[in-house]
Amino acid sequence: MYDEEFFKKIFPFWDKLSDNDKNMFERYSSAVSYDRGTMIHSTKAECTGAIIVKTGCIRAYMMSDEGREITLYRLYPGDICMLSASCVLKSITFDVFIDAVEKSECLVINGKTLSDISQRNMFVKNFALETAVSRFSDVMWVMQQILFMSLDKRLAIFLCSESEKNQSDTVRLTHEQIAKYMGSAREAVSRMLKYLSRENIVESSRAGVRITDRARLEKLAFDQLKD
Amino acid sequence: MYDEEFFKKIFPFWDKLSDNDKNMFERYSSAVSYDRGTMIHSTKAECTGAIIVKTGCIRAYMMSDEGREITLYRLYPGDICMLSASCVLKSITFDVFIDAVEKSECLVINGKTLSDISQRNMFVKNFALETAVSRFSDVMWVMQQILFMSLDKRLAIFLCSESEKNQSDTVRLTHEQIAKYMGSAREAVSRMLKYLSRENIVESSRAGVRITDRARLEKLAFDQLKD
Repeated sequence: MYDEEFFKKIFPFWDKLSDNDKNMFERYSSAVSYDRGTMIHSTKAECTGAIIVKTGCIRAYMMSDEGREITLYRLYPGDICMLSASCVLKSITFDVFIDAVEKSECLVINGKTLSDISQRNMFVKNFALETAVSRFSDVMWVMQQILFMSLDKRLAIFLCSESEKNQSDTVRLTHEQIAKYMGSAREAVSRMLKYLSRENIVESSRAGVRITDRARLEKLAFDQLKD
Repeated sequence: MYDEEFFKKIFPFWDKLSDNDKNMFERYSSAVSYDRGTMIHSTKAECTGAIIVKTGCIRAYMMSDEGREITLYRLYPGDICMLSASCVLKSITFDVFIDAVEKSECLVINGKTLSDISQRNMFVKNFALETAVSRFSDVMWVMQQILFMSLDKRLAIFLCSESEKNQSDTVRLTHEQIAKYMGSAREAVSRMLKYLSRENIVESSRAGVRITDRARLEKLAFDQLKD
């Protein structure tokens, strides 16, 4: 059972709910622990519900018929995934996949319950839509990156942001994983890492990719985004 | 001045508006005629407002710093563009460009007015969000196409749908225009059209692209979308 304080913090609409609906939220949400790599949600056909990240990290991605993946966004503690609640957002007509990037504790709010409540409470409906629209911006950013930016710049940005996020010079991911998160082919990423190694900007090993010349990597990432 | 019947048809929330807000809608909307190719909206910095298409066709697209364009969706009579109303949808943080595909008559509802009304009326807010979320699905479809589908299939699908839309065997667009609508490079489209011509599936001339073997083009477009 979840205490009210938690919901209050997550949901701006909490005070606008009837007591009955508050109870519904509490009764129809379940704490789930996902191991790293676990598939959490896979097609719009199932309405998994809203997923609130409590610890860890999950990601939403799209997948081609041949299994090629493109990461759309990642969610961290306090973030809410709404694209997994297709029965609440009827206008979402695409498939999105969600899995756990690392071991994650989540709270899943039953899709049917959320849909029912959003029918009778405009504030809930609004919140669901608003959350979805803000992901729209994330997806457009990814699309801009993939379609308009050169791979060296994208890779540099990715390495800088991973390193910053983990407060470490080493990005502990395989070429395969980096390619997956960036929505690129593994071969292309490996080739580019080889180039960056030859330039003494990074060192690539089994343990991952270590940044050896941060200044030049950042220059590559953030200089003249216009060219 | 617009008659109420028109707004009633377009806006499902019309009956939920106060008389004052109905008046605001009528007072702060203007009929605008755009010539083919006119830029209607260009950055999120300006809040153009909601654009309702009355006749013609407009399109929303993204653009790289080098001017490469990718069409996100097109809007036809009765459709509403909400991404041009960034002051209403605060969570939209990307630039979208809108221009007239052909001569179009539109009704533009002032962004500030719409934003004010959406603050005090949840139904209006909801409608704006819902409209934006449904475009999210369009954009995901475009992204799937561009990132996961081969160019021959995409070109075949494009030609089939253009021909069907205009009820004509000839698609009256230049290679440059086709590339722009498909989000591809002009050279790649020209090369592929040359290939389709050699296969006697289409005939390419100054007037446009004429479909000469519809059965094979459709087979290319719709067969085994999985391979």
